[in-house]
Amino acid sequence: MLTMGIDPGTARCGYGLIEVDGDRLKALEFGSIETNAKARMQDRLEKIYDTVDVLMKKYQPDVMGVEKLFFGRNATTAIPVGQARGVVLLAAAKNRIEVAELTPAEIKLSVTGYGGADKRQVMFMIAKLLKLEGQIALDDTADALAVAIAVTNAKR
Amino acid sequence: MLTMGIDPGTARCGYGLIEVDGDRLKALEFGSIETNAKARMQDRLEKIYDTVDVLMKKYQPDVMGVEKLFFGRNATTAIPVGQARGVVLLAAAKNRIEVAELTPAEIKLSVTGYGGADKRQVMFMIAKLLKLEGQIALDDTADALAVAIAVTNAKR
Repeated sequence: MLTMGIDPGTARCGYGLIEVDGDRLKALEFGSIETNAKARMQDRLEKIYDTVDVLMKKYQPDVMGVEKLFFGRNATTAIPVGQARGVVLLAAAKNRIEVAELTPAEIKLSVTGYGGADKRQVMFMIAKLLKLEGQIALDDTADALAVAIAVTNAKR
Repeated sequence: MLTMGIDPGTARCGYGLIEVDGDRLKALEFGSIETNAKARMQDRLEKIYDTVDVLMKKYQPDVMGVEKLFFGRNATTAIPVGQARGVVLLAAAKNRIEVAELTPAEIKLSVTGYGGADKRQVMFMIAKLLKLEGQIALDDTADALAVAIAVTNAKR
């Protein structure tokens, strides 16, 4: 099974593609799509869409995982995050890829065994599970890999 | 000049296409794209994208207007609205259509002459300006036509 995880954002959109290899997980490709804050919003969204679309066509994942979002407090970022999430979901629809949504607690529980784990613990376990120690630079990339691992665990 | 106005939403996405005809405005097409609440989010977003894309290809508007969004209070709807807005902006990018963003107050001021106008006043003026008395059924359609009128007024 091949899973794509996405952490949508307009400034940076994390992605990670992982595969089940025997009884362990293997990262095929991961990173963050960065967009220029000075560019027009529609062009930033197009860059995100096109990059995700290329990755989907290249790897043909069985499922795409994204975090379920709740905006109680930070409503100002909800619109740009929602916009990035919209084009990522559209890319899944256009490529006929199933979408799985997990809550932050479900993701942490699946990756670390503890739903209240902090960022450092999640990062540590991702690096360990995927043998990527010292190779994940950005939180967005880590979050995308985390959701990919959690969706893979839920499906296998 | 041909202007497209959009009022993005996941359940209902209003649209309106208007043209300057001499010294008056003419509505070419208007309505609301409705999506099934029981359908998967990615499929609902695809329906919105595809419908907007078809309208853009048919009318080739010079500019697309959307409301500038602020979510202070109602953060729960910010994500679905943001997602619909994202695919609409992507459609503009893919069709190389300029995007204009106006605040609700700017739109009301442009349509009614008063930035604090209520919904009823806005609806009355839209119907009057476009000679559509009794023909606009939904708020989303009215809001889309309002932003199209305001963008047209700002450009001509």
